[in-house]
Amino acid sequence: MSAPLADQLDIVIPTIRNLDFLEEWRPFFQPYHLIIIQDGDPTKRIYVPEGYDYELYNRNDIERILGDKAWAISFKDSACRCFGFMVSNKKYIYTIDDDCFVAKDPSGKPINVLEQHIKNLLTPSTPFFFNTLYDPYREGADFVRGYPFSLREGVPTATSHGLWMNIPDYDAPTQMVKPRERNKRYVDAVMTVPKGTLYPMCGMNLAFDRDLIGAAMYFGLMGEGQPIGRYDDMWAGWCTKVICDHLGVGCKTGLPYVWHSKASNPFTNLRKEYKGIFWQEEIIPFFQNLTLSKSSTNVEDCYLELADKVRKGLGHIDPYFSKLADGMVAWIEGWRLLNPPAASLEK
Amino acid sequence: MSAPLADQLDIVIPTIRNLDFLEEWRPFFQPYHLIIIQDGDPTKRIYVPEGYDYELYNRNDIERILGDKAWAISFKDSACRCFGFMVSNKKYIYTIDDDCFVAKDPSGKPINVLEQHIKNLLTPSTPFFFNTLYDPYREGADFVRGYPFSLREGVPTATSHGLWMNIPDYDAPTQMVKPRERNKRYVDAVMTVPKGTLYPMCGMNLAFDRDLIGAAMYFGLMGEGQPIGRYDDMWAGWCTKVICDHLGVGCKTGLPYVWHSKASNPFTNLRKEYKGIFWQEEIIPFFQNLTLSKSSTNVEDCYLELADKVRKGLGHIDPYFSKLADGMVAWIEGWRLLNPPAASLEK
Repeated sequence: MSAPLADQLDIVIPTIRNLDFLEEWRPFFQPYHLIIIQDGDPTKRIYVPEGYDYELYNRNDIERILGDKAWAISFKDSACRCFGFMVSNKKYIYTIDDDCFVAKDPSGKPINVLEQHIKNLLTPSTPFFFNTLYDPYREGADFVRGYPFSLREGVPTATSHGLWMNIPDYDAPTQMVKPRERNKRYVDAVMTVPKGTLYPMCGMNLAFDRDLIGAAMYFGLMGEGQPIGRYDDMWAGWCTKVICDHLGVGCKTGLPYVWHSKASNPFTNLRKEYKGIFWQEEIIPFFQNLTLSKSSTNVEDCYLELADKVRKGLGHIDPYFSKLADGMVAWIEGWRLLNPPAASLEK
Repeated sequence: MSAPLADQLDIVIPTIRNLDFLEEWRPFFQPYHLIIIQDGDPTKRIYVPEGYDYELYNRNDIERILGDKAWAISFKDSACRCFGFMVSNKKYIYTIDDDCFVAKDPSGKPINVLEQHIKNLLTPSTPFFFNTLYDPYREGADFVRGYPFSLREGVPTATSHGLWMNIPDYDAPTQMVKPRERNKRYVDAVMTVPKGTLYPMCGMNLAFDRDLIGAAMYFGLMGEGQPIGRYDDMWAGWCTKVICDHLGVGCKTGLPYVWHSKASNPFTNLRKEYKGIFWQEEIIPFFQNLTLSKSSTNVEDCYLELADKVRKGLGHIDPYFSKLADGMVAWIEGWRLLNPPAASLEK
């Protein structure tokens, strides 16, 4: 089984339970290092299947490492996974939920998610013009007639967003209306989300380049003590997309698929989501109309500028957004603590 | 075999040869009315397979009908097909090249292209936000978590751009570099090209709503007497996309596939294309940065405003663009001649 970039990629898993799901992933994940973020009660013992190389952080560890910035890492919410993005010292991150299993392609072959995500990340993106035959860098495909030649070199890829067979990633209202809907359609495509277009980035099956976008991959303030949940990955998706657009790097979506085994409880989800359902109607136009200044030329600066814009532009919706802006600043402080410039150079 | 909207859709075919390819399409196309645009020598007799209901226009007919505006319809180039768009009195148009045949889906079933195009046209588009599970209106799919509810009604669909198995739609340089490349990947998806993003619209397998975008579906000045060829559909694609974005209607791409049987000669293509290859590097940014005025609220007004912008914004590249702007105006005059407001109301 091929294990590309095994020394350059960490797998980040947030969990509150035993990681038995790793048994099924063993042929694909065992060559990689795992970063496990234990959510909830830190005294609980998480079982990790034997043979895996891992480091595990619980709430006490986060408090110890980040000190007065630890509050910015969500508690009792899978948003806590972003601590793993910060503490990693690898170039690439793959993050997956512990209710996701190995999917099969239409020929019945188990899908090597990391191999596909790495292909996505190592080939360029094409955010400036749409290619009707999808990823032009894939074998058997290319740029079609009418695609400007000056744009065929593409730009570096920051994010690879994978999809889900079986249980689709629906919000609570859709879950409630369509309790039996399953995703059975394997769409054999990878594409770049065009510049200027936002997409709903899901954290279930996601890979990214830490150097290119890691400092903006903050999953916000969710869970205990916060007014919303289930918008952690959406928040990160909006922020990373506008920063990728500003910096001229790309976000891809499509392959690979995981098998999402079970739907979360729609009633619980509705309680977590309902404010977000209202708020996103204002947040999304805010991000669609946002322009970062030319002087912000790296991810950290972009993110701090964005935090400032969030405070000014979304604060009127709810005091939560001022706190979130504080969290964004604390996140960058934590990021810099754990990723000092010198260390970055060594990578 | 289902023949949806048989009384509301015309099939437009430009040709210089006998239409034997219609034999293979018989089960799908025979219930529809054909508009055949005979290119080249008008004295040549075009054979149409028996049993088809059709009208045929040759160059003499175009001259007779359009008079002093006939020059705007290209000669010796498949761009002449747009005369068929103008002369039709149906709501929907499907246009196909005579070297395109029935493709099969992965299960081996022949693909009913019209059924899929009509599905695409009759369901809304979603140009304002990207849906990661592709067309949300398709059976078994929906909007994913994080998709704003205010955008789920979608907008009317103006264009349905279908794809090609076997010979991909490559430009001459790509044809030359990859003479053996064939498209074997069936991507089971339809998606909306996001607002603000241009795409290379190919005329080989294309459907649209005449009422919503017909007056902008001019294929420009190509072929005899013109400095370029093979940019007719690209031109129409750029123009229709910016007007669709302005008017808030959608362009879809993806399914259905046709089987494109043979590659055109790459040397001939290079001769036709080479100026376009340079020019598109300026034309595309021109369209990307173009804004239509709020006072242009229908397709004809948008198109006339665009003609004016083309004259002013692209005229410096080559005198051709002034002539093209004249052609755009003549096209609208012809369109109005054949589609007077009263007649539109009757539809």
